[in-house]
Amino acid sequence: MSQCDLRVGVVHHLNTKPLIFGLQSLAPALRVRAGAPSQLASWLRAGQLDVALVPVLEYFSRPDYGLIAESAICGDGRVRSVLLFSRVPVERARSVSLDPESLTSNALIKVLCQKRFSIEPTWVARSQNDDPSIVLKRGGSDAAVVIGNAALAMSGRFAYEYDLGQEWWHLTGLPFVFAVWAVRRGAETGDLAEVLRCSLRLGLAHLDLIADEAARSLDLDPTLCRTYLRQMIHYDLTDRAKQGMGLFFKMCAEMGICPSSPPPDLAQWLNPPFGGR
Amino acid sequence: MSQCDLRVGVVHHLNTKPLIFGLQSLAPALRVRAGAPSQLASWLRAGQLDVALVPVLEYFSRPDYGLIAESAICGDGRVRSVLLFSRVPVERARSVSLDPESLTSNALIKVLCQKRFSIEPTWVARSQNDDPSIVLKRGGSDAAVVIGNAALAMSGRFAYEYDLGQEWWHLTGLPFVFAVWAVRRGAETGDLAEVLRCSLRLGLAHLDLIADEAARSLDLDPTLCRTYLRQMIHYDLTDRAKQGMGLFFKMCAEMGICPSSPPPDLAQWLNPPFGGR
Repeated sequence: MSQCDLRVGVVHHLNTKPLIFGLQSLAPALRVRAGAPSQLASWLRAGQLDVALVPVLEYFSRPDYGLIAESAICGDGRVRSVLLFSRVPVERARSVSLDPESLTSNALIKVLCQKRFSIEPTWVARSQNDDPSIVLKRGGSDAAVVIGNAALAMSGRFAYEYDLGQEWWHLTGLPFVFAVWAVRRGAETGDLAEVLRCSLRLGLAHLDLIADEAARSLDLDPTLCRTYLRQMIHYDLTDRAKQGMGLFFKMCAEMGICPSSPPPDLAQWLNPPFGGR
Repeated sequence: MSQCDLRVGVVHHLNTKPLIFGLQSLAPALRVRAGAPSQLASWLRAGQLDVALVPVLEYFSRPDYGLIAESAICGDGRVRSVLLFSRVPVERARSVSLDPESLTSNALIKVLCQKRFSIEPTWVARSQNDDPSIVLKRGGSDAAVVIGNAALAMSGRFAYEYDLGQEWWHLTGLPFVFAVWAVRRGAETGDLAEVLRCSLRLGLAHLDLIADEAARSLDLDPTLCRTYLRQMIHYDLTDRAKQGMGLFFKMCAEMGICPSSPPPDLAQWLNPPFGGR
């Protein structure tokens, strides 16, 4: 019953709040640390965390990671917080700047450019301090991937806007998994899986409260926040979500974006029922 | 995910608070109603509730009840809130007054009188309005069963005091189950079982808070309340607890206190691993 020494990394975006709503209340002794998805990936890799909500791409790359919970950050169609803003129709974009906070969405845009938009743009690294609006306006790139709270806030401000969750859905008909709870194999997590399940359940019972608080603190429209949490983001790692994750892994592996051998939990799903490799 | 129309009955004693701590917070739409154990039994029987924390004796008597959760009110030795107060050593008691709020503890004292104390007292019904201290002092009976918050408050005020949980333990070496979550078979309970599990988990994370609030509102010693919740009451229906429950059922059935055919869930445990009847 004790997880006193466990260090758990959580994402500081709105989409994560329902997953972690009850976390400290259920397990006051957990050491919870918040960061951007890409930071969490580094911290877990460096051994500064035991468990973290990591970008699914990071999970793909680590054969020593296991999944600890059946909760995740998923979209099934439009997600509204993983966007490509563009000054031109995407089919004509010659350069795309990537979000420094992201790993998975940066990989997703690469997959989509090849398999859905049929373009081969130049990839531009953006630094943490670059405002993506300014980068775009100054012509630093034709298009820019923006994720999380920043994407919610920037929506509607550029001529072309593509929702990467929706584009994935058009390509595959499947949900897209953005982040999963990963644990280094062998770490003693006690009953953290159940704590995470109960935490999500508490969060789902308080979605409106979470949305309204976020709307206030991020200066967003409360209705947008409520719709976002209730309809855009899904928190259960369902079989269809696993199927979407498996397909994304295969595409990333094919394109050399991640290693070609999946972590064990994923390998298991890639064989029946989701077909061999 | 919806249990909007479910009517859930909970006991208003301190021992129940950890089980239901997160209930309304996890499922705001549940219609929760509190009462004495014996009241909950009548309400569930009358169809005024769908699920209730009922006295285990009531559960024994209803072949149409199922168990909905692996949480319960159990003791493993001394419980402090199910007491027999007596003016004489119990071996010399000729009359015992029963607690009108109780079903299970009244049955337990009958089992203990026969199998542990070897006495055959007269059973005196006490009404809801009779103060058990006054009944005892005025000689309305030699001894009196008192349960719940009233027992915690009365402790230490009579010459002889017996803890029924401890006496059961001396008799059998097993835990005693006082109350279980029962549901009428066929009732649609959605994911209430998981809600109850998460509710208990939240309660266990807040035992000190619950104890301190109860100490204030019931004017009891905070240390007593903390010890009571942390050490006296157990909330998991473990295999040993089920074994204790099965043995109590057999004794009650033998003595004609309950029907001789157990409800289906219990019947299952009475066969191996706990031995046939």
